Amino acid sequence: MGGFASDNNAGIHPNIMKAIAEANSGHCIGYGDDTYTESALQKMKEVFGPQSEIFFVLTGTAANVLGIRAFLKPYQSVLCASSSHLNVDECGAPENIAGCKLMEIPSENGKLCAESLKPFLEVVGNEHHAQPAAVSITQSTELGTVYTVEEIAALSAFAHNHNMILHMDGARISNAAAHLGIRFRDITFEAGVDLLSFGGTKNGMMIGEAVIIFNQGWAENFKYIRKQGMQLLSKMRFISAQFAAFFNGDLWLKNAKHANYMAKLLSDGIRDIPECRITQKVEANAVFVKLPPHSIDELRKRYFFYTWDAGNHIIRLMTSFDTTENDVTGLLRTLKESIENAG
Amino acid sequence: MGGFASDNNAGIHPNIMKAIAEANSGHCIGYGDDTYTESALQKMKEVFGPQSEIFFVLTGTAANVLGIRAFLKPYQSVLCASSSHLNVDECGAPENIAGCKLMEIPSENGKLCAESLKPFLEVVGNEHHAQPAAVSITQSTELGTVYTVEEIAALSAFAHNHNMILHMDGARISNAAAHLGIRFRDITFEAGVDLLSFGGTKNGMMIGEAVIIFNQGWAENFKYIRKQGMQLLSKMRFISAQFAAFFNGDLWLKNAKHANYMAKLLSDGIRDIPECRITQKVEANAVFVKLPPHSIDELRKRYFFYTWDAGNHIIRLMTSFDTTENDVTGLLRTLKESIENAG
Amino acid sequence: MGGFASDNNAGIHPNIMKAIAEANSGHCIGYGDDTYTESALQKMKEVFGPQSEIFFVLTGTAANVLGIRAFLKPYQSVLCASSSHLNVDECGAPENIAGCKLMEIPSENGKLCAESLKPFLEVVGNEHHAQPAAVSITQSTELGTVYTVEEIAALSAFAHNHNMILHMDGARISNAAAHLGIRFRDITFEAGVDLLSFGGTKNGMMIGEAVIIFNQGWAENFKYIRKQGMQLLSKMRFISAQFAAFFNGDLWLKNAKHANYMAKLLSDGIRDIPECRITQKVEANAVFVKLPPHSIDELRKRYFFYTWDAGNHIIRLMTSFDTTENDVTGLLRTLKESIENAG
Amino acid sequence: MGGFASDNNAGIHPNIMKAIAEANSGHCIGYGDDTYTESALQKMKEVFGPQSEIFFVLTGTAANVLGIRAFLKPYQSVLCASSSHLNVDECGAPENIAGCKLMEIPSENGKLCAESLKPFLEVVGNEHHAQPAAVSITQSTELGTVYTVEEIAALSAFAHNHNMILHMDGARISNAAAHLGIRFRDITFEAGVDLLSFGGTKNGMMIGEAVIIFNQGWAENFKYIRKQGMQLLSKMRFISAQFAAFFNGDLWLKNAKHANYMAKLLSDGIRDIPECRITQKVEANAVFVKLPPHSIDELRKRYFFYTWDAGNHIIRLMTSFDTTENDVTGLLRTLKESIENAG
Repeated sequence: MGGFASDNNAGIHPNIMKAIAEANSGHCIGYGDDTYTESALQKMKEVFGPQSEIFFVLTGTAANVLGIRAFLKPYQSVLCASSSHLNVDECGAPENIAGCKLMEIPSENGKLCAESLKPFLEVVGNEHHAQPAAVSITQSTELGTVYTVEEIAALSAFAHNHNMILHMDGARISNAAAHLGIRFRDITFEAGVDLLSFGGTKNGMMIGEAVIIFNQGWAENFKYIRKQGMQLLSKMRFISAQFAAFFNGDLWLKNAKHANYMAKLLSDGIRDIPECRITQKVEANAVFVKLPPHSIDELRKRYFFYTWDAGNHIIRLMTSFDTTENDVTGLLRTLKESIENAG
Repeated sequence: MGGFASDNNAGIHPNIMKAIAEANSGHCIGYGDDTYTESALQKMKEVFGPQSEIFFVLTGTAANVLGIRAFLKPYQSVLCASSSHLNVDECGAPENIAGCKLMEIPSENGKLCAESLKPFLEVVGNEHHAQPAAVSITQSTELGTVYTVEEIAALSAFAHNHNMILHMDGARISNAAAHLGIRFRDITFEAGVDLLSFGGTKNGMMIGEAVIIFNQGWAENFKYIRKQGMQLLSKMRFISAQFAAFFNGDLWLKNAKHANYMAKLLSDGIRDIPECRITQKVEANAVFVKLPPHSIDELRKRYFFYTWDAGNHIIRLMTSFDTTENDVTGLLRTLKESIENAG
Repeated sequence: MGGFASDNNAGIHPNIMKAIAEANSGHCIGYGDDTYTESALQKMKEVFGPQSEIFFVLTGTAANVLGIRAFLKPYQSVLCASSSHLNVDECGAPENIAGCKLMEIPSENGKLCAESLKPFLEVVGNEHHAQPAAVSITQSTELGTVYTVEEIAALSAFAHNHNMILHMDGARISNAAAHLGIRFRDITFEAGVDLLSFGGTKNGMMIGEAVIIFNQGWAENFKYIRKQGMQLLSKMRFISAQFAAFFNGDLWLKNAKHANYMAKLLSDGIRDIPECRITQKVEANAVFVKLPPHSIDELRKRYFFYTWDAGNHIIRLMTSFDTTENDVTGLLRTLKESIENAG
Repeated sequence: MGGFASDNNAGIHPNIMKAIAEANSGHCIGYGDDTYTESALQKMKEVFGPQSEIFFVLTGTAANVLGIRAFLKPYQSVLCASSSHLNVDECGAPENIAGCKLMEIPSENGKLCAESLKPFLEVVGNEHHAQPAAVSITQSTELGTVYTVEEIAALSAFAHNHNMILHMDGARISNAAAHLGIRFRDITFEAGVDLLSFGGTKNGMMIGEAVIIFNQGWAENFKYIRKQGMQLLSKMRFISAQFAAFFNGDLWLKNAKHANYMAKLLSDGIRDIPECRITQKVEANAVFVKLPPHSIDELRKRYFFYTWDAGNHIIRLMTSFDTTENDVTGLLRTLKESIENAG
């Protein structure tokens, strides 16, 4: 079965597999006090800037939830898109583990803008209501769209003007950076992001996410939050070695560019089919497409993918670092055949 | 530097490394809905018995804390040894994440017995006090001792008679089973254990622990607790493949037997030195030894290890699946020299 | 200044004040093990039915949050109206203390119906999402409307068919029962309510709410949840004595009928003023009215009340057990004058 | 039955009852924005000093737990006596609601000293362990003993030197101040206390405790913690009026002096009976006494009291503001008779 279900259905990039194997030599002090970790963190500090404090964790949920936990007090709330992973796909962990209330904001394309945040500030200072303390955005969004630097900067300015931090869920930040053609630093610290969940797993790693804190005052306590948050791996070197390989020679960029290009090929092909309609801008590695219902059934016989909006017959197709042109042309062929057969 | 600091300072066993590499082929549905996971779970069900429900998680802290969370209500407490990892080394996660109160019980050798639990039952039914709902033991203990089947059965009988469950922190259960020469099932389900934290990382895996629930009524909800507990890995196949290799051909047993044997060699050698005193029975892969203070300083120049009790000059030496006889004789030689030089 | 801000701005009904004074005699065992409490609970069991288990707490927030905590597991969610007190006015306590996610449902009149709940059931069984386990309704609603018995029964049937409980926030249930002219039992247990937050404070008590559990299986643990939830008053007799007086001779009903009647007088008077528009059915003791903006300013000089929707110039006027006809005619006169003066 | 069970078994002092009744006039804005509250807070600021920030809550558990919650991060711990109410009598609320780990310290007389705290600082900076952030003491202690100003100052100096705060559980601080013959301010702010749980209920109020924060930087957020902590009473004026009466004419001091004097009479009488042994210094309003076992049974037929240590036949006798000399002589007579009859 061909795979367009998710970029996390892909395996491990060979360079990263090799790095794991090479780190498997002799004994190392556990929990990150090793040279592999030191080296990976140093490399990432170069990438994200000297003010960044970086902590490896094991899942994207943990990066999001523990990062927010570090910054928020128990009575504070997070403003986020209704469609955000934080709101939809964490099984209530932000509420239960970080302890905060999420204020969900409807958004057509998965993005927030300052205007949509304003009504949530009316409760500031009123003890009957959870107090807004963070804005959380996803880059690239759950709908495959990408915030520009200007959009991020506008949100961070708004957040900071109202005593909130800006959190970025960067599970797919590599795809966003590849799309924009700029450095991670430009869409994070330089644009005013305070807290970043940096994702490695969806772009070729086996396991590995990072919480990156750009405001050092908040970072000093994170090591305790990580440990208490059940995310401190004893054999840390094997996470660190993956991150080192991920950044070595800009592997992350090659992987993300490839995945994005596959999404472009896929969406270009779909646009040629009049019966289909692309419903979101294709800026990263996701393609949202409205199909004739019977085509969805036909595609599902040969491909894994998720239905996004059953009522409107919209499916999500994700590409990844290992998607091939053959995979794309195969899916397009199946799709066309399904339409011709129905005709 | 030679390593006797912890069994988690060792690397990945070659068979397990190979299994990771072999699983790295093509796409797999994420989050455990894959054949690697199905196969590993099936193998483990054979080992632990058909009534066992098994969930892979990423850290030992998570196995302990989320397992307990699944069984306990917010106002309940856990009876455990003062020296238990649960009480000492989880940065308050049992209290903060599982939400329970720990009732710590002093123990010379790290083991609990029913007699020591009785005083904690006086509060049963009194709403002013957290209600005892679980007994937690560690096998092998943090002091390298091993519960016999009879001891476990006595504790589980006591627990069950008082409406408590028996939890076993099995971060090093392989070493215990190897010492006792019996099956996992005999010291868990058959002896009345309700909930097991099964450890893979300390015995040759890269990353991987399991929560094993022997009472199926409690298991149905654990998948949500795992996900909310930030422990559901997307590329689960790479955990599952490790577990499959861990059980294949009883690799776990070979690894544990070797580590235990190295601890025996080490303790036998130390017993020959009159200036040193072994302070705990050496039943698994830990050796606790009281040394002349200057010997501790000398040893530390060439070896990693932890001081257990600074005031009494007791250190802990851990062996692992990859400890060699050379490592052991080297340490013994260094130790003897330190004593002769001081003489 | 006249008071239409909230029914909780009223004082203590004289009968209840007298009951507090009469209970102030000699020593009583603390924490509810006294005859005042026994007697109040017995009276309330007659009212709510023999299957009801009743626990006094100190605030409405506590009744809502601890009741839900008793029934829900940490990964479960509550379906509630966007405008519900639970969602808006508890400073995030449901999320932080009960640990659950709230799924908010827009509603014009503050009521839920089964149809609006259905989309939230799509996630059942999927570990990535908080699992719906409770429907929470407010009776009378935050918008002054009242659920009929049939509406409640339909919601409870839907909830029970989908393995959810039905919670009722009855901070103003007296006003609803008075409006419907039926017994508490008919709109709670008999209509399928599983869990009730019963409010006394807004209807003439000094302090006192109750968590009423109609499903005895869930009640046995609530005493611990109440104590841990910081709601177990040592001098409980003074809460119990209030409840006894509240039910004695149906004081609750007289109070609620009076408040409702004052709201009717008020809304009838307002309906006679063409410049004003009543925006919600007046069924209990709240009147929502859209006014000319300058009238709001004029009214505010002499009366306390809350603006409900500033953009649409809608204010909320609450009546209480001690609102007088003079209060109502006074406000109406002020309102009319403000309009004439502006004309 | 005569009452020596607890000072919270007493009723409401007449002055306080009168204050409640007097506050029951007309409407007041809810939740503390009223003149009764303003006036009570102002009076208490005079007593505790201008730097104090004062928040009324409803139970002693809430004062302790929410105060600690305001100051501690989730991974931090509190050092307290094993016998402290915080550790023993809150049904796990410090762990579950404040989220912190308690480090219990054995103490013969219920008091802590700096020396006993030192071993708990070894873990500072080590992420595997909960980090000590508060020392909590009880004044007067659960064993009826009283910290001197010097003892408190020594503990606060130690705490502050190690980046910890000093919390005082002052459920019975009135009895301690009466014993010492000094102002509240001298044993709190002036002695270095950062956070005080101030108790009113045990000394003549119906209901009312206060969280007093002496470090204003921490106070700004407490109003949210109180509301989320389910402790914000709508009809706040009735708590505030009690506090005003409590401080008016030093009623608190008269009440506490009386209770202490009754304890002195009681213990003096008991000391005259050779078969009985007072086991703790009688400094406040508690008398701990070891009795012949049959005397305990005899006493229990006519008096309420708690067994403190069943194995050693030690009971606790509490006096209160309304204990009479007749009560004391009656109990002494019963006690003597029980001994004579047994002879």
